[in-house]
Amino acid sequence: MPFDALFVPPDVREATGERAWMQAILDFEVALARAQARAGLIPESLAEAIAGAQVDFDGLMEAGRASGNPAAALAESLPDGAHRGATSQDVMDTAAMLVVRRTLPLLDAELGGVASACARLAAEHRSTPMAARTLLQQALPTTFGLKAAGWLAGVDEARDRLAAVPLEVELGGAAGTLASLGDHGLQVLSLLAEELALDEPVLPWHTRRGRIGQLGAALALAAGAVEKIALDVKLMAQTEVGEVSESSAGGRGGSSTLPHKRNPVGSALAIACAHGVRGAASVLISAVAQEHERAAGAWQAEWDALSRALALTGGAAAALREALDGLEVDADRMRANLELTGGLLLTEAVSTALAESVGRTRAKALVADAARRASDGGRELRDELAADDQIELSAEEIDRALDPVEYLGSAEAFVDRALEAHERRGNG
Amino acid sequence: MPFDALFVPPDVREATGERAWMQAILDFEVALARAQARAGLIPESLAEAIAGAQVDFDGLMEAGRASGNPAAALAESLPDGAHRGATSQDVMDTAAMLVVRRTLPLLDAELGGVASACARLAAEHRSTPMAARTLLQQALPTTFGLKAAGWLAGVDEARDRLAAVPLEVELGGAAGTLASLGDHGLQVLSLLAEELALDEPVLPWHTRRGRIGQLGAALALAAGAVEKIALDVKLMAQTEVGEVSESSAGGRGGSSTLPHKRNPVGSALAIACAHGVRGAASVLISAVAQEHERAAGAWQAEWDALSRALALTGGAAAALREALDGLEVDADRMRANLELTGGLLLTEAVSTALAESVGRTRAKALVADAARRASDGGRELRDELAADDQIELSAEEIDRALDPVEYLGSAEAFVDRALEAHERRGNG
Amino acid sequence: MPFDALFVPPDVREATGERAWMQAILDFEVALARAQARAGLIPESLAEAIAGAQVDFDGLMEAGRASGNPAAALAESLPDGAHRGATSQDVMDTAAMLVVRRTLPLLDAELGGVASACARLAAEHRSTPMAARTLLQQALPTTFGLKAAGWLAGVDEARDRLAAVPLEVELGGAAGTLASLGDHGLQVLSLLAEELALDEPVLPWHTRRGRIGQLGAALALAAGAVEKIALDVKLMAQTEVGEVSESSAGGRGGSSTLPHKRNPVGSALAIACAHGVRGAASVLISAVAQEHERAAGAWQAEWDALSRALALTGGAAAALREALDGLEVDADRMRANLELTGGLLLTEAVSTALAESVGRTRAKALVADAARRASDGGRELRDELAADDQIELSAEEIDRALDPVEYLGSAEAFVDRALEAHERRGNG
Amino acid sequence: MPFDALFVPPDVREATGERAWMQAILDFEVALARAQARAGLIPESLAEAIAGAQVDFDGLMEAGRASGNPAAALAESLPDGAHRGATSQDVMDTAAMLVVRRTLPLLDAELGGVASACARLAAEHRSTPMAARTLLQQALPTTFGLKAAGWLAGVDEARDRLAAVPLEVELGGAAGTLASLGDHGLQVLSLLAEELALDEPVLPWHTRRGRIGQLGAALALAAGAVEKIALDVKLMAQTEVGEVSESSAGGRGGSSTLPHKRNPVGSALAIACAHGVRGAASVLISAVAQEHERAAGAWQAEWDALSRALALTGGAAAALREALDGLEVDADRMRANLELTGGLLLTEAVSTALAESVGRTRAKALVADAARRASDGGRELRDELAADDQIELSAEEIDRALDPVEYLGSAEAFVDRALEAHERRGNG
Repeated sequence: MPFDALFVPPDVREATGERAWMQAILDFEVALARAQARAGLIPESLAEAIAGAQVDFDGLMEAGRASGNPAAALAESLPDGAHRGATSQDVMDTAAMLVVRRTLPLLDAELGGVASACARLAAEHRSTPMAARTLLQQALPTTFGLKAAGWLAGVDEARDRLAAVPLEVELGGAAGTLASLGDHGLQVLSLLAEELALDEPVLPWHTRRGRIGQLGAALALAAGAVEKIALDVKLMAQTEVGEVSESSAGGRGGSSTLPHKRNPVGSALAIACAHGVRGAASVLISAVAQEHERAAGAWQAEWDALSRALALTGGAAAALREALDGLEVDADRMRANLELTGGLLLTEAVSTALAESVGRTRAKALVADAARRASDGGRELRDELAADDQIELSAEEIDRALDPVEYLGSAEAFVDRALEAHERRGNG
Repeated sequence: MPFDALFVPPDVREATGERAWMQAILDFEVALARAQARAGLIPESLAEAIAGAQVDFDGLMEAGRASGNPAAALAESLPDGAHRGATSQDVMDTAAMLVVRRTLPLLDAELGGVASACARLAAEHRSTPMAARTLLQQALPTTFGLKAAGWLAGVDEARDRLAAVPLEVELGGAAGTLASLGDHGLQVLSLLAEELALDEPVLPWHTRRGRIGQLGAALALAAGAVEKIALDVKLMAQTEVGEVSESSAGGRGGSSTLPHKRNPVGSALAIACAHGVRGAASVLISAVAQEHERAAGAWQAEWDALSRALALTGGAAAALREALDGLEVDADRMRANLELTGGLLLTEAVSTALAESVGRTRAKALVADAARRASDGGRELRDELAADDQIELSAEEIDRALDPVEYLGSAEAFVDRALEAHERRGNG
Repeated sequence: MPFDALFVPPDVREATGERAWMQAILDFEVALARAQARAGLIPESLAEAIAGAQVDFDGLMEAGRASGNPAAALAESLPDGAHRGATSQDVMDTAAMLVVRRTLPLLDAELGGVASACARLAAEHRSTPMAARTLLQQALPTTFGLKAAGWLAGVDEARDRLAAVPLEVELGGAAGTLASLGDHGLQVLSLLAEELALDEPVLPWHTRRGRIGQLGAALALAAGAVEKIALDVKLMAQTEVGEVSESSAGGRGGSSTLPHKRNPVGSALAIACAHGVRGAASVLISAVAQEHERAAGAWQAEWDALSRALALTGGAAAALREALDGLEVDADRMRANLELTGGLLLTEAVSTALAESVGRTRAKALVADAARRASDGGRELRDELAADDQIELSAEEIDRALDPVEYLGSAEAFVDRALEAHERRGNG
Repeated sequence: MPFDALFVPPDVREATGERAWMQAILDFEVALARAQARAGLIPESLAEAIAGAQVDFDGLMEAGRASGNPAAALAESLPDGAHRGATSQDVMDTAAMLVVRRTLPLLDAELGGVASACARLAAEHRSTPMAARTLLQQALPTTFGLKAAGWLAGVDEARDRLAAVPLEVELGGAAGTLASLGDHGLQVLSLLAEELALDEPVLPWHTRRGRIGQLGAALALAAGAVEKIALDVKLMAQTEVGEVSESSAGGRGGSSTLPHKRNPVGSALAIACAHGVRGAASVLISAVAQEHERAAGAWQAEWDALSRALALTGGAAAALREALDGLEVDADRMRANLELTGGLLLTEAVSTALAESVGRTRAKALVADAARRASDGGRELRDELAADDQIELSAEEIDRALDPVEYLGSAEAFVDRALEAHERRGNG
């Protein structure tokens, strides 16, 4: 497909590409033969012949149109005796699990890179005040560290979800009964799982596709955790906000016609990838109800969607990881933005301070009135408060209430909790 | 909405309806007050006043249009001092978790009913031969028990996925810092979680929505596990297949104009619900990337989608449970369908038997030739095999090879494994 | 469902609610009887008896569980002779088209209100300069009128798409052959279409659902056109941007705890609704492939999804219409934001002016250098340009190049074209 | 991506591949230069130099990571003076329209092939009786021609929807104002549209993406129209139904292990592709709300999704066209299936005949009783009717009522109407 090199890092592209699938198919056949050799069903030498077979991958996909999958075409190039007891779906499903198992560490490395960058930002900016924004309006002070800690927790949760999906070998034969293996079915199943280091299923899952759907969902949610960060970054990088910018090293994010621009290119690519992962995941989730013992259509829809969901999750994570690694944070601008409303942001803090003497309800009303007057008159809230006789706070008390650093609540404690949780989890 | 009574059972409708949400909102406010009373921040009596407050729910939704959510409107009807430290999203998110926690047992009861029915069918029909069908073509014999065992495993996996979603309390205040609670933030958070018996989050999750997405996905996959069964049932219930039919007790599935029909109404309703759950889940999954500290749009999209996903998952499970509870199984018809191809279904068994003397490749070729002659000539495979001099199998050996009961491989063992796994899991 | 009153305006709620569906079902039955009376198949009096029948709607939905739809249950309460020739799907499909036809004008009124507001803003602010933003970075000047003109064109295109969906009557009988009407099938079909003022299909569309999917898509795209505007509004309303704000009349968008906030509540609700419409539309689009002559599941999934897609499109349009009607535009702030980069935004204009003497390539390089120096040194671009000997532009030429109003290109002409197109289209 | 050669025909693969996109990008640049030469803005010779430029496509995608799209990288390899007035999005959007315009005829050729096959089947089997099936239960007789006529209408409607999407040139420059073209903006826009034979937009559509969404929806619905046919084919091809089978020429659909199988491979591939198109279309539909004057993420998500939606729609249509071209229809089996219920299918016909003498209500009751007795007793309905004194129909009348050919209603007339509509439409 076009654009893969634009969106997907090379290693992930390779791990989810056609050769990787073909290799996984071949690995299945070899492992099956070894399992059968260990069970005494075929000679050791046959297993080795299969392992050593030269397979010409070119054209196997087109050849696969006749049977609806490439596994049958490949099986025909193998030495006689190979593929025994297996059906095409055994091959394709197990190959899919191998592709997943080989790609997930690449994704986790990128996601882990994102997590590390978030952890670093959370620690460095544990106490850097900035405006929290709700419905895109400044609400109250928070710290950039707390924002980054939230990102971190989201990415780690997503990684845990990915790691929790069981990856099972598939072996059921044409009907899911392993009939052609006679009494050796369960034994070969068990040995095959061992050979490939995949989980052994309770029974074949030819049309029990919940875990494929779960994998799709976990990928979409991982890409979504990445997208949340990219969304915040691009919003903070707005010209009018200017709190962060992606690195412009190597001309990145520049515009030939508009030299002042610092486009959040990494964030944009990450978001674009996340859209794509959702589309692919929706295919996997909506294909879980498959007919009888093998589906005509829903199953075959999985291969491309799964490859795509994996590849673009990798693309999302890699693009954001690069963006965060080079992220320039402007703490002064964060502070300046906090001042934009002339203290209005801290009316809650003033009310809280005032409540001690006049009660919460009255405090809120008095401060709201002052805030309205300040806002309508374009004056500083501080002055308005000081001028109001009913507000019995000293200038010092008003100053403290209007200092964002004094009104961070548990922000820093939450950062610490998040970093500890990340530490406990480990980043591997 | 129209059609809720058609698709959703009454208890699930109630648990996900407007009153249930409003009650959950009120429960949050009461629990928050009790937590604060325990922390010594407000008097015990205030907590009790809130608990005893008469709230008029009518019109709260319409009133909510001004603030974009119903929580603010409700908070205003509470005694002064209520809602302290909380923001609307704290209320709505925690209420959502309460609605989920109260609805999930109802869903699990229906899903458990489906699982029980599947377990019963798996046990009863452990050895009932029927045709396995791949790409909707008869492939090899299997047992109805194995099919039902696959259904069972799919439903239990789906239930495990639902049970694995953490349900956390939300409390962060306007900026996620719990600033207005001063030094008591973490303490109140912890006490609130305790009051409501919800998990305590590491830090607020106002815009860390992966778990909402995970919940949506788990619901879609649960509905998908149900849909898989409904799909098989409606296919087996086809006039030309006739292996099962949904109960017609009480005129169910009948047609006034077509008295012979036995429509698989339960399966159809279950499938319809599963479509709807997927749509709602896609809303939840695609809304996970939310801006800054509270989203303007993506968050508000969750409430309806979550209610809908819960309700329709309940609808899917209930409709299928009813269908399975009354399912009529026609084992004779299963057997008769197995005979439809005159033994062609068992060519693999014949090849396997013949391979012992002539090798697998030659065996396959000889049997395939005989099968083709039988198929083209409209003759029984048995006769064709017996007439072929190159096929050195006795009539008795041919008969055994062509007996589906003799070629079930590990089908029954897989049934046992699935039933044991279900037993171990428990049905609660 | 909960939250309907929060998101959906009352008239749209009513038009898509259970009573509206039931009324449409009854209207079908009456029209069918009248068509048959006109064809001489039943006496006029029977048609009138059906028209006058008292139907008790309560409980019909729950009763519908036995047959999988409410039409059969309702048919039983009608005088003998009603419903002749029709199958449940004829009733439900035609009722759906009636519900759509009755709801679309309500949606179009809201969408037309949005379009009018956009047209007004486009005309009023045809020449109001503001920063165009690409990847959320200020790029070049544009006018607010051009932005609003783009909104307008998007909404009118969406309305055209909705109006282009054919709404056909459904009448095919149990098998789509109209067999029980004997030789009168086509005549009754034609008369029925006339009675209900719906289009007459070439042949029944029981399982030809592309137009249902098209309707779903058109609704999702209409909600998307609304969402695009809401997205721009909420971004422009950010505290740090401040170019527009939604009206705060009646306390709208206010926050009890944060009195300075002016939440873009209408935009948030509109975006939330658009998410929901997409979910519902995905159900309709993914259900188009329906089995044989009537589907078991995919068809039944349409009713709720269609009601929801209609209702939430109405919700999106209404919320945005309200927001735009009360929108406060701050042209001064737009101008001030344009100045934020100290002229860097207009480097392209300077290059273009300079290119006349030194060629485009050299002009671009010289200006880019000056821009970089200005940016790095925190100086005004104007001064940097004037100080550069290689840049042979007079102070006056530099000033003109740096005046955003002088660099609006075809912005105003595009506004005029869009307003003319809207005029030609009419707003009805 | 893996599997493209399995699912997508070579010409469609090429038309939607990376080279095709790059060529389209280059075509834009050449046409832009020619338009500007015609407007007198650049010399004719420059336009020709651009047209003759040697561009090295390799590596452009990876290079594009720095700017987030490949257009900027390509522009740098062009002669100085190229690309004037255009922004990257102008290039990419116009290139997308060119890719679409070049691919649609390939899709329409495949869809037209499907339509032709449907028209042929509808004409040939205009009067071939078969069972109509509702909820997968036999309902009443229909003809295979009517089923095929419905397929035909669905495909032609889908083609009309695809043809109705306007394909507009994009040219707006960095801010959508065409500022750097001074007074020549509208003229160049118009000439460019002419050069490329694309529609001229009223104003740039950088963030007015409804038509991209419309295109996605139209592709999903086209794939859905194909899927509906594939679904019917695979159901009719079931071993137990046996009414059609896909051609097995060249070993297609065969199974090495199960020689009796005739897998509906074309239908399965078509359905798989349709799943994929829906996933890609959901990306396009959910990305329509794009920020300000160019989106950071949603726009970039379109390219891959659009390529994929086009490619897989081609795959769906091609696979089904092949399947239909070789479809083997077994009219005898259709007739035999009609007899399976021993006449129960025609109770409505008997009631209608009987109603003339005893009225509809009593007729229905009498026939329903007889049907139940027949069904319970495993007897022929004919005998049961003849034996019932209350049913005053002669043996001849009963025979006629039970003859499916006598109860086809308007089936053949509907076939004629559909064929005429197809004729009128033309197949081009």
